[in-house]
Amino acid sequence: MDTTVSTQLIEARAGRITPEMEAVARDENRPPEFVRDEIARGHAVIPMNPAHANCRAVVVGSSYKTKVNANIGRSPVRSCNDEEVAKVAVALDAGADFLMDLSVGEDLGDVRRAILDACPVPVGTVPIYEALSRVGGDSKALTEDLLLDVIRDQAEQGVDFMTLHAGLKREHVALAIKRLMGICSRGGAILAEWMETFERENPLLTRWDEIMEICRKHDVTVSLGDGLRPGCLADASDDAQFAELDTLGELVTRCREAGVQVMVEGPGHVPFDQIQMNMERQQELCDKAPFYVLGPVVTDIAPGYDHITSAIGATSAAYHGASLLCYVTPAEHLCLPTSDDVRQGLVAYRIAAHAADVAKGLPGARDHDDAMAKARINFDWQEQFKLALDGDTARGRYEGSRSTEEGDPDHCTMCGREFCAVRTTRRLAGMS
Amino acid sequence: MDTTVSTQLIEARAGRITPEMEAVARDENRPPEFVRDEIARGHAVIPMNPAHANCRAVVVGSSYKTKVNANIGRSPVRSCNDEEVAKVAVALDAGADFLMDLSVGEDLGDVRRAILDACPVPVGTVPIYEALSRVGGDSKALTEDLLLDVIRDQAEQGVDFMTLHAGLKREHVALAIKRLMGICSRGGAILAEWMETFERENPLLTRWDEIMEICRKHDVTVSLGDGLRPGCLADASDDAQFAELDTLGELVTRCREAGVQVMVEGPGHVPFDQIQMNMERQQELCDKAPFYVLGPVVTDIAPGYDHITSAIGATSAAYHGASLLCYVTPAEHLCLPTSDDVRQGLVAYRIAAHAADVAKGLPGARDHDDAMAKARINFDWQEQFKLALDGDTARGRYEGSRSTEEGDPDHCTMCGREFCAVRTTRRLAGMS
Repeated sequence: MDTTVSTQLIEARAGRITPEMEAVARDENRPPEFVRDEIARGHAVIPMNPAHANCRAVVVGSSYKTKVNANIGRSPVRSCNDEEVAKVAVALDAGADFLMDLSVGEDLGDVRRAILDACPVPVGTVPIYEALSRVGGDSKALTEDLLLDVIRDQAEQGVDFMTLHAGLKREHVALAIKRLMGICSRGGAILAEWMETFERENPLLTRWDEIMEICRKHDVTVSLGDGLRPGCLADASDDAQFAELDTLGELVTRCREAGVQVMVEGPGHVPFDQIQMNMERQQELCDKAPFYVLGPVVTDIAPGYDHITSAIGATSAAYHGASLLCYVTPAEHLCLPTSDDVRQGLVAYRIAAHAADVAKGLPGARDHDDAMAKARINFDWQEQFKLALDGDTARGRYEGSRSTEEGDPDHCTMCGREFCAVRTTRRLAGMS
Repeated sequence: MDTTVSTQLIEARAGRITPEMEAVARDENRPPEFVRDEIARGHAVIPMNPAHANCRAVVVGSSYKTKVNANIGRSPVRSCNDEEVAKVAVALDAGADFLMDLSVGEDLGDVRRAILDACPVPVGTVPIYEALSRVGGDSKALTEDLLLDVIRDQAEQGVDFMTLHAGLKREHVALAIKRLMGICSRGGAILAEWMETFERENPLLTRWDEIMEICRKHDVTVSLGDGLRPGCLADASDDAQFAELDTLGELVTRCREAGVQVMVEGPGHVPFDQIQMNMERQQELCDKAPFYVLGPVVTDIAPGYDHITSAIGATSAAYHGASLLCYVTPAEHLCLPTSDDVRQGLVAYRIAAHAADVAKGLPGARDHDDAMAKARINFDWQEQFKLALDGDTARGRYEGSRSTEEGDPDHCTMCGREFCAVRTTRRLAGMS
């Protein structure tokens, strides 16, 4: 594949199976031709900029294992580059399939360079953050040309996918500001203020054709941002959200016409009963472009536990069609996540992704669960810790609860020997 | 109400609204007559033994707020009475609506007395645990008479509801032992072994009419145990589980005929896609008796995080009809829960219960979420901590992340001032 003039989408449409398609077909246990066909239709994407050295190919689409993205990135008031690079290692160790660098502040090229170098999985960004950072946080100083420059610089540097809030039109702003929580997307809020200040249309939309050229040249996958995602349950599934979704559907078509891979971002905060409808509506309006959702959080009342409130929503979202889950950490709504938050968020989201894969009946998905059940009925604790999503934590709880004299592994401190149902079952089944 | 000869069910059928029905009608914002009618039909229960002094009335049914039960209780190899009584305080503080004392070992009457005295919410037990404890853990020494004695003693002491695994017939055992995880219910395993040893039917079933007499006399609500609940995803929704459920449906009818309040217990470990079907099947077979579910866990691969794997399932279960959720703690599958596990489990389950109540459209359920959203858009951090399920944890994260010099509350360390979407929204909406 000529990396400067083609994309996975263009190659797939031309009937060519790229090495990346072959690699993901192996990982996902699917025929390469099946993958090629789905990429060609736009039902799956492989976000991978050839300039991101040592990046591995990962496929996103509802026919494949549900993937998890971890957001990291320097805050304007907290953290430094080294801390964020350290979080990359934590996120990879905890099983992140994708990483987004959401850093804001000065010298963003340096932290992104360090993250790209440290990161063998696809890396995404939100270019409007760097654009605003380059003008010191003053949205009045932002220009269309600067935004294009940032997108071009990031594409050249090797960014694999970019969140572009191009679906947020000026006419949508009035719908959004009358909501209970208004606009909770950072990118959406910046663009809305810019549009109102200059009385002009969204610069991402007016310069869309040029953006397409850059993305096609570097095979940057567009992740159409939902600048009007609801910031609380009360705002879910409202006119603002769905007006933007209509535009996102149009932009999916324009991306595909330009040969650019595209996925679509979704909410946010959604009551549990509205998740299925949201997924189906996106799949229909966006012609099955992969759906990349943030949570959704299913209740607003539990700050400090939003990895849980959102893992509930994420499981349902993935079951009903979302293919990439952006994690939410326990720090959400409170502060910048620590390394431990990154780990907690990833564990919760790998649970959600896997639970959805089992529920969807993905071939082989339940094998891992069955192996755990077998280890349990056999009292094979070491195997249980090996199979566990976070084996160190599981081992710590089990071993920490037992006194050093207890040699017998055939029970735990929950039930003891006499009340252990597994011991009884083994006797009944003639296993011991 | 004559507390020695009637039950809430008998009173309701006679057209009488008891003080307990009036109390729950107030708590749930429903007309007392609506509550009476639902109790009379058996679609709701108020588990409350008149001998449990200072117990408050709590209603269980799918028309009301979803309730959460916390299991506590001494393990045969860990913990002492004082520790378990301390956990009662933790559980109540964290919002438990019901408590089950699952203690096993010696002198169970003492720990139960202490728990009943400390506990203003309904308390449940599993009498087979005490029966087996009284014979030193040797199921061969268990007799039908002893089991009846224990049920009578506990009813007289003031236990509000009892798990009775009477639906597990001898003919079901063969179905269960060929499963991957066999029988994971402690009570189910004990009874199965007893039936196989003595080649006799389940003593709870053969002595059912006598049990009904005791329960009616003390208005003990029967919680029909699912001794064959699946212990892993592979065993979910299988012949063993559903054979027992058929018998549970028959026992619901017998309870109602005897004037005894009844609810039904459910799984366990269930893939996310099978939860709705499980809830609907129970509602149909058990004629809308309140469904009391344990989780369900939606994946087996995350020991140490089963409060999360099961809060996902519990949200879906409650949305699809379950009305009482038995919490699962992070200690599940590993060891006896600590006080911190009790708290973590309750937070996760109050999230699940509330998210389901919002999704079901229970009147006023979302008010709490909307108040939080309002506090967020107004940067009213103190109000956010007041409204949070666990305000201390939320406050700790927020304050701990800020340096002491930062006086300005109009942002957090996630986005800082310039990138804060809430600040931008407030400017756009003319709020600041």
